[in-house]
Amino acid sequence: MNARPRLIVIGGDAAGMSAASQARRLRGSTDLRILALERGYHTSYSACGIPYLVGKTVPSPEDLISRDPETFRRDFDIDVRTGTEAEAIDLDRGTVTARTAGEGPVEEPFDELMIATGAVPVRPDLPGMDSPGVFGVQTLADGIAVREFVDTRCPRTAAVVGGGYIGLEMAEAFVQRGMEVHLVEAAAEPMSTLDPDMGRLVREALVKMGVRVHMEEPVTGIETAPGGEARAVVTDRAAYPADIVVLGLGVRPDSDMARAAGIEVGPTGGIAVDARMRTSAEAVWAGGDCVQSLHRISEAPVAIPLGTHANKQGRVAGTDIGGGYARFGGVLGTAISKVCGLEVARTGLNEAEAERAGFEFETATLESTTRAGYYPGAALMTLKVLAERRTRRLLGAQIVGWENAGKRIDVLATALWNSMSVDDVAAMDLGYAPPFSPVWDPVQIAARKLAEGM
Amino acid sequence: MNARPRLIVIGGDAAGMSAASQARRLRGSTDLRILALERGYHTSYSACGIPYLVGKTVPSPEDLISRDPETFRRDFDIDVRTGTEAEAIDLDRGTVTARTAGEGPVEEPFDELMIATGAVPVRPDLPGMDSPGVFGVQTLADGIAVREFVDTRCPRTAAVVGGGYIGLEMAEAFVQRGMEVHLVEAAAEPMSTLDPDMGRLVREALVKMGVRVHMEEPVTGIETAPGGEARAVVTDRAAYPADIVVLGLGVRPDSDMARAAGIEVGPTGGIAVDARMRTSAEAVWAGGDCVQSLHRISEAPVAIPLGTHANKQGRVAGTDIGGGYARFGGVLGTAISKVCGLEVARTGLNEAEAERAGFEFETATLESTTRAGYYPGAALMTLKVLAERRTRRLLGAQIVGWENAGKRIDVLATALWNSMSVDDVAAMDLGYAPPFSPVWDPVQIAARKLAEGM
Repeated sequence: MNARPRLIVIGGDAAGMSAASQARRLRGSTDLRILALERGYHTSYSACGIPYLVGKTVPSPEDLISRDPETFRRDFDIDVRTGTEAEAIDLDRGTVTARTAGEGPVEEPFDELMIATGAVPVRPDLPGMDSPGVFGVQTLADGIAVREFVDTRCPRTAAVVGGGYIGLEMAEAFVQRGMEVHLVEAAAEPMSTLDPDMGRLVREALVKMGVRVHMEEPVTGIETAPGGEARAVVTDRAAYPADIVVLGLGVRPDSDMARAAGIEVGPTGGIAVDARMRTSAEAVWAGGDCVQSLHRISEAPVAIPLGTHANKQGRVAGTDIGGGYARFGGVLGTAISKVCGLEVARTGLNEAEAERAGFEFETATLESTTRAGYYPGAALMTLKVLAERRTRRLLGAQIVGWENAGKRIDVLATALWNSMSVDDVAAMDLGYAPPFSPVWDPVQIAARKLAEGM
Repeated sequence: MNARPRLIVIGGDAAGMSAASQARRLRGSTDLRILALERGYHTSYSACGIPYLVGKTVPSPEDLISRDPETFRRDFDIDVRTGTEAEAIDLDRGTVTARTAGEGPVEEPFDELMIATGAVPVRPDLPGMDSPGVFGVQTLADGIAVREFVDTRCPRTAAVVGGGYIGLEMAEAFVQRGMEVHLVEAAAEPMSTLDPDMGRLVREALVKMGVRVHMEEPVTGIETAPGGEARAVVTDRAAYPADIVVLGLGVRPDSDMARAAGIEVGPTGGIAVDARMRTSAEAVWAGGDCVQSLHRISEAPVAIPLGTHANKQGRVAGTDIGGGYARFGGVLGTAISKVCGLEVARTGLNEAEAERAGFEFETATLESTTRAGYYPGAALMTLKVLAERRTRRLLGAQIVGWENAGKRIDVLATALWNSMSVDDVAAMDLGYAPPFSPVWDPVQIAARKLAEGM
């Protein structure tokens, strides 16, 4: 018997390993044993980097790994078991049933448990979905498989199903690899986290980049060649040639095992946690794509799968496990992406979300430039802002523009975090010099325009 | 007699013309006459663009003019008189004495007065300072003169006296024009608005760019050629060859005329104004480089000559004159600049300023990258942050780094505007994707590092 308490971490990516390493920083090896179970073969990698791996912007999969299992073992004294899937949690007995590939199930006892099981990609049950040549792009292993397929099979045509961030980034990757690219999307515009009027700008830019964009066409199946491999993506309107198909239809929290163990799961399908990342069960924490978070503006729970949240939540959980004090402050739904030079960013609530949250609001949309108009490289950017009626509080913002447009979303996110009014946003003292912005930063012109219209 | 009240605006640049045009928007021509007196021949131009005019990044002086006198006359019904200098204000009689070049003085009556006299460049009383070839770079006319000098005389050597923003930007301009450039500065490091440890990074970068940097060398005079024109900048250590000399020694508020009229001038030398830009005199407003502003962090008055403040203050004054309601929210001392690719930015208080303001504080300095480490173009940036002991409130930040580093200062400025703690800065939901930042934005890593050290 070993008297030292044991922490089991289920899931060896951002949230899980952040929690494990933070717990280790606060509690030395004499005080805590840590076992981390990872079903794949990689730990702590940048899933957001996968499109750049496929597009060869990033040379090697190793570039995306921030810490491999050996590093965690050596530097953090964490017993990392890859290729090992957790199958069940028994809270009464304090065990996790785990199975390493090719072996039988083993019961591993824990005193403390961190659930970081991540998310499950949405994969519609349609003909041909499991054919060779159809890929998800969720894990690093997925990314390596897509890159190998492109490297060895030299596909000439690619279809991306789903026009969200991942879809757009994969479309860019395939364009960079010289393929004919079809983007197939059920909604009227790509980037459904933007309002349609802003999504339209993205669609128009994609078309100019040579992407064949097919909107309002739900996929009905994958057509296969006689050998069984994918050949085309089929909608009720047409069949689009595709030697390779990538699914970017979003993910849902992987909370089934937690739910089966009796741990509370929220209305979003994410595990319910408090600000210290504690679940409804004693001594059980959770973080990352498998949990739901509080949206600071709608004040409703949301499940937003993003590496930034996973890292922060893992760190908060690890601090709590380690006996420290930290709280996760909630999310704003901030996101940013780049497609062939077009920068797309958003934060807070879009119109549909603001309506759903019961806000009365006004909007303003503004076109400006990223630098002083006379300075070389000044590029167009469109900004849309939403504010609550009466309180004049900023509710959300969206940006579509060229170089140096996107990261301005952080100013608006910081404003949202602080419940600023659009008047105050327009009044702030931001940095100005001709290579960086017009004398009134576009963020402030947009806020001013909205303020004046209210 | 004309019964319509008359507004006189002294100074036809950012603050003055913003006030005039905003007043006009709110009060039509039947309600208000507006006379604007401008001693130069240009209105509403980007003084910040002058270095780019000299460096030929910007082709023509016209590119820097946002609205010329004719536009103000035509579109705003403002009687703009250029080449006309206001010489005195008589508050009792309600007149401004103005003199148009080559004519006698004229008394112009006003009902309302907006003072936007700008700033006076510091010009030390040293031998040779008035020689041909020695230039200030405050007005567009200055900029045109420097450019013409470079175009026609083809100087091979240039000296910039003063290592602040303007000095650095002029050094860049001369480097771009192919000259040997000497930067001569009395302090130990350039950019005295940064702490010396951050200024050192700027100096090292300047040296690598080929600028000859001479620190801790107060200028003792300008050496002239037999024909009287500047030939070298002399310090107590050496004489640096200079076919052209540019003075970038800063400015002081041009408040003498206001003071002479009995209007209150503050300890900074700037005209004292309230948040609605009203001076101590009835029906007299002021704004721009000639006033002092409240620093939101030190809570002391400061005189910070910047186009952003001038524009905002002019607009507030114009709104008040127009019968509307607006307040100027104060300043943070945010500034940003670029020298040959190096981005330099700051906001809030540096160490010396924080000490002077009586704060107890801690600092943290961090090196990070502008994009995910594995993404092409990831560039180094150094961030320094200051926070108050006990309250953990952010007090200031400084950035020195390469492409895409500098504008991150806006996130920190927004945080400062909202009195955020470094803990909250580290917790925020900022935009992340590999082309834009590491998974923890450098701003947040720096805040976290400081938070952990407190």
